[in-house]
Amino acid sequence: MNPADIAWILAATALVLVMFPGLSMLYGGMHDSRNVLNTMMMVMSGLAVTSVVYVLIGHGLVLGNSVGGLGIIGNPFEYAFFDEFMKEGALNAAFYVLFAAISISLVASGAAGRIKFGAWIIFSAIWVVVVYGPLAHWVFAFGDPEAGIVGGWMRDILQLHDYAGGTAIHMNAGAAGLALAMVLGRRKSTTMRPHNLPIMLIGVGLLMIGWIGFNGGTAAGANFLAEYVVLTTILAAGGGMLGFMTIERFRDGHATMLGLGTGVIAGLVGITPVADAVHPIGALAVGFVAAAAAAWGITWKRRHKVDDTFDVFAVHGIAGIAGALFAVLFASAAAPAGFNGVVFGGDLNLIWREGLAIVVTLGYSFGMTYVIAWVMNKIRPIRVSEEDEEIGLDRSVHAESAYDLRTL
Amino acid sequence: MNPADIAWILAATALVLVMFPGLSMLYGGMHDSRNVLNTMMMVMSGLAVTSVVYVLIGHGLVLGNSVGGLGIIGNPFEYAFFDEFMKEGALNAAFYVLFAAISISLVASGAAGRIKFGAWIIFSAIWVVVVYGPLAHWVFAFGDPEAGIVGGWMRDILQLHDYAGGTAIHMNAGAAGLALAMVLGRRKSTTMRPHNLPIMLIGVGLLMIGWIGFNGGTAAGANFLAEYVVLTTILAAGGGMLGFMTIERFRDGHATMLGLGTGVIAGLVGITPVADAVHPIGALAVGFVAAAAAAWGITWKRRHKVDDTFDVFAVHGIAGIAGALFAVLFASAAAPAGFNGVVFGGDLNLIWREGLAIVVTLGYSFGMTYVIAWVMNKIRPIRVSEEDEEIGLDRSVHAESAYDLRTL
Amino acid sequence: MNPADIAWILAATALVLVMFPGLSMLYGGMHDSRNVLNTMMMVMSGLAVTSVVYVLIGHGLVLGNSVGGLGIIGNPFEYAFFDEFMKEGALNAAFYVLFAAISISLVASGAAGRIKFGAWIIFSAIWVVVVYGPLAHWVFAFGDPEAGIVGGWMRDILQLHDYAGGTAIHMNAGAAGLALAMVLGRRKSTTMRPHNLPIMLIGVGLLMIGWIGFNGGTAAGANFLAEYVVLTTILAAGGGMLGFMTIERFRDGHATMLGLGTGVIAGLVGITPVADAVHPIGALAVGFVAAAAAAWGITWKRRHKVDDTFDVFAVHGIAGIAGALFAVLFASAAAPAGFNGVVFGGDLNLIWREGLAIVVTLGYSFGMTYVIAWVMNKIRPIRVSEEDEEIGLDRSVHAESAYDLRTL
Repeated sequence: MNPADIAWILAATALVLVMFPGLSMLYGGMHDSRNVLNTMMMVMSGLAVTSVVYVLIGHGLVLGNSVGGLGIIGNPFEYAFFDEFMKEGALNAAFYVLFAAISISLVASGAAGRIKFGAWIIFSAIWVVVVYGPLAHWVFAFGDPEAGIVGGWMRDILQLHDYAGGTAIHMNAGAAGLALAMVLGRRKSTTMRPHNLPIMLIGVGLLMIGWIGFNGGTAAGANFLAEYVVLTTILAAGGGMLGFMTIERFRDGHATMLGLGTGVIAGLVGITPVADAVHPIGALAVGFVAAAAAAWGITWKRRHKVDDTFDVFAVHGIAGIAGALFAVLFASAAAPAGFNGVVFGGDLNLIWREGLAIVVTLGYSFGMTYVIAWVMNKIRPIRVSEEDEEIGLDRSVHAESAYDLRTL
Repeated sequence: MNPADIAWILAATALVLVMFPGLSMLYGGMHDSRNVLNTMMMVMSGLAVTSVVYVLIGHGLVLGNSVGGLGIIGNPFEYAFFDEFMKEGALNAAFYVLFAAISISLVASGAAGRIKFGAWIIFSAIWVVVVYGPLAHWVFAFGDPEAGIVGGWMRDILQLHDYAGGTAIHMNAGAAGLALAMVLGRRKSTTMRPHNLPIMLIGVGLLMIGWIGFNGGTAAGANFLAEYVVLTTILAAGGGMLGFMTIERFRDGHATMLGLGTGVIAGLVGITPVADAVHPIGALAVGFVAAAAAAWGITWKRRHKVDDTFDVFAVHGIAGIAGALFAVLFASAAAPAGFNGVVFGGDLNLIWREGLAIVVTLGYSFGMTYVIAWVMNKIRPIRVSEEDEEIGLDRSVHAESAYDLRTL
Repeated sequence: MNPADIAWILAATALVLVMFPGLSMLYGGMHDSRNVLNTMMMVMSGLAVTSVVYVLIGHGLVLGNSVGGLGIIGNPFEYAFFDEFMKEGALNAAFYVLFAAISISLVASGAAGRIKFGAWIIFSAIWVVVVYGPLAHWVFAFGDPEAGIVGGWMRDILQLHDYAGGTAIHMNAGAAGLALAMVLGRRKSTTMRPHNLPIMLIGVGLLMIGWIGFNGGTAAGANFLAEYVVLTTILAAGGGMLGFMTIERFRDGHATMLGLGTGVIAGLVGITPVADAVHPIGALAVGFVAAAAAAWGITWKRRHKVDDTFDVFAVHGIAGIAGALFAVLFASAAAPAGFNGVVFGGDLNLIWREGLAIVVTLGYSFGMTYVIAWVMNKIRPIRVSEEDEEIGLDRSVHAESAYDLRTL
């Protein structure tokens, strides 16, 4: 990398790191006041667990040469201990650590308020290896025939277009959260409202900033691609905000702050796979459509009584799918990615390529996550006792409470 | 732009984006606990509304070739739909979207706690077009005689020095907030204290960081000008903090956190138009003086019973004027802008140039904003019912509340 | 500096600035609800006081040519008024202002909850000159024999390895906080728990981001060194989080959020002096070990009843020592710093070099800080009255309170 590219990726890495306090605040603010700290610790610990797992074998699983040349999984030992990043590539490695870490942090949505903290830590480590590793390899590992390097099958064989991880990160986290929620079952009480919406909005704000680093940094340098995706990312956040508020206005009679924040995140998720592929007006529309899809997904969840605490399936899974499908239809060849959606005469193969990637991602993530959680639960129950849940996990699991406002 | 410049402006754009959660926390923390979410939504929605309006016609109004070569307003269709940013200039366009958006978000100060949310959304869209558009054109549009491009009259004819939008953004938002507050009238109850000052300080902190992007990014690249304005911006924040606390100490006997935070913002506003024009010691002094001016403005407001909820007129309008006038007197030719203030033998024309720009900015912004709000209110009242205001807008307008701390 | 380096240092400066709201939230969230605003104001005012002191004489004291060629103190007038930064070097100067400011802000830990605000302001100004100035000169001032410039003795004569200020900033702040706590005595009541742990975690998160700028920016450009230290900094944060939680788990039976956050900060402190000198696995280990050392230090403090309110001595002093000593033993020559720790056959002189620097830093900082505070206290008591302390400093000193949640 040349110095200017390094300069931007350094900044982008710091921005992506903002996502951890951001997601902690988003999820912690949405939870009831007995489960705030536990929720935040689940999110933050994703960074700690991944730091270890990823340095040992994770990066090899994701970006190592495909084992057996199959495009299924990278060689786990190729980057073991990060030895080789002592001379070059350290920044890129750091960026990938954060990508893996934010994915498992998102999955916390499916378990918050009822999983044992130790079980969550163990689950996290297994999930990063078994679920994230292969999925990220399929999407992020580019092959290089001349150098004899085989990449992931979605990227190399399917030729999937996924700009910054709509599949491996967002749909994956969404499906995994759903599976985890189903294995764990519902919380005893789900009637509590978000206990602190200003904190939740801080989370939304920090995630929004982090996304600039996430999408902008994926351009791998200080170039026009980075410029363009930053523009579309901002527009999609605005479109998502409008989209969710509009739906609330007509459905419920009033827009809410929870909706505004959810719309921003859904819009950002929606643009992630297609930030380089849509027209600026398309970016506004992606945000709007992804937010609408997330709103529908949240309603769907409520009807089916699946207790995905912070709606990662709706807001990351469904909104991610909506964004990807939008580009299949409406991508603009004038954008950096340079292909038209089928509505504008683009290649019809886009439909099944994108469709297959979505189905396989959701299926693999949901299935494997379900199995991991189910097996763990068989070995030793991973859910806290009814009594602990009643008391709230902050007090029962961590022996502290989020606030002490006695002197007010 | 070369890659190094892109690298910095990418980071600067992310920093400016921090201002939206920042201002949400500043204003939301200052409001009483019944109006927190409504306030934050007014601020955040500025980004959503502007995203749409600006992409359609806003950017043309601001940076398009002056219609009729008059320097009054840009051609609204010149950048319609942002088509042309699909090949170059996307980042610059994104930066300008955020400038417009933060301006309308600031104006929320004049209406918070009593305007209907739908009316605010409509007002925002009109204001960005009718008030911000022309003012930003006057100040931000540089002409290029060789290319046959006519810029804004303040920049091209008046040769105003306004580094990063002291007029078009801060004085404009201040005057508009004041006008809006006068059309709407006072809240029924203004006795409530800020409900959450730690949140308010998060806001101040995020805005401070955002300002580094705002002023530093205005240098349009990674150059010495950017270096210098970052230095003066930090010093002005420190000077502003000291200034407000000093005045409080001698006036009231004690410094406050609300004062400290207000001083930081006033100092940052003060340095915005002159960050490239003053000595480092001058930067400290600008901060101090701007904070003192804002403190005076807040007292003035209280005496006149104009209910500018978060004091945008004092903290952005008056502090902005103080900063601009400081440079008229004390600018240092050794600074990058390269001209001396009149005290140091500078051009006396500075006085009327800067003075005329200030008067026209305040007059246009106040007058047009007043007319827009007045007309809207005639068509259909824009203020919420007395009952809704009594209940608080969080509950009455959005059917939610900021906190649910029942389990504490 | 070339443009790419400027681009990164501009962003890094903004990131370091994040540390001020970050530390405000960390300390404010940890304090009881009667002393929140006072605590935050103590932290924030560090930036204001340093802005003035540092521009006048501080930068000369730190980076000026050593007076008398002794390596003891820089020429205070060399950069007086920052005149020379009007043509070049402005960014570097801004970076150093923030380094000095964050140091005094950290020291607030030793006095929070009982010092008069005016006394704190005066103490801050004196401390930056008398304690920080010399210590920073010893460590940060590089000599240049050819140009006839003599640097600080630790750097030039002792040839200390201290990557980004483990001595001059963290051990210094830790020892100073301890001294201040001893002069002031204990608070009357230290039984209150942290009043707002979510706010505390926001602080941790912002500090974590700020540290990327702090360590990454110390590389002085967009280069591999910056890449590498960003990687090790992130890994140390993860290691620190795991370390503190692991100790809590085995010692107390449960991990806490306060522990998680404290572990992150301790890990970051630990890596600061050695971010360029350890293997990636070493970075994880440094974080873990520094967090363990901080946990031990907090227990030690409780036993000795020294009222270092937010544990700056344990979390910055002891964790800093742990990090430095780790590198003495386990540094890897393959890392950018290029030397082996003694376990890997490195120079045994590392032991006494690092040891002497630690002892002198702790001794000078503790002793001088004690003297300053003791003398100030003799001239006029610096501690608030018992009654004011009972009421809480927010109300008694600043006449405001952090929250007004009456309408909930």
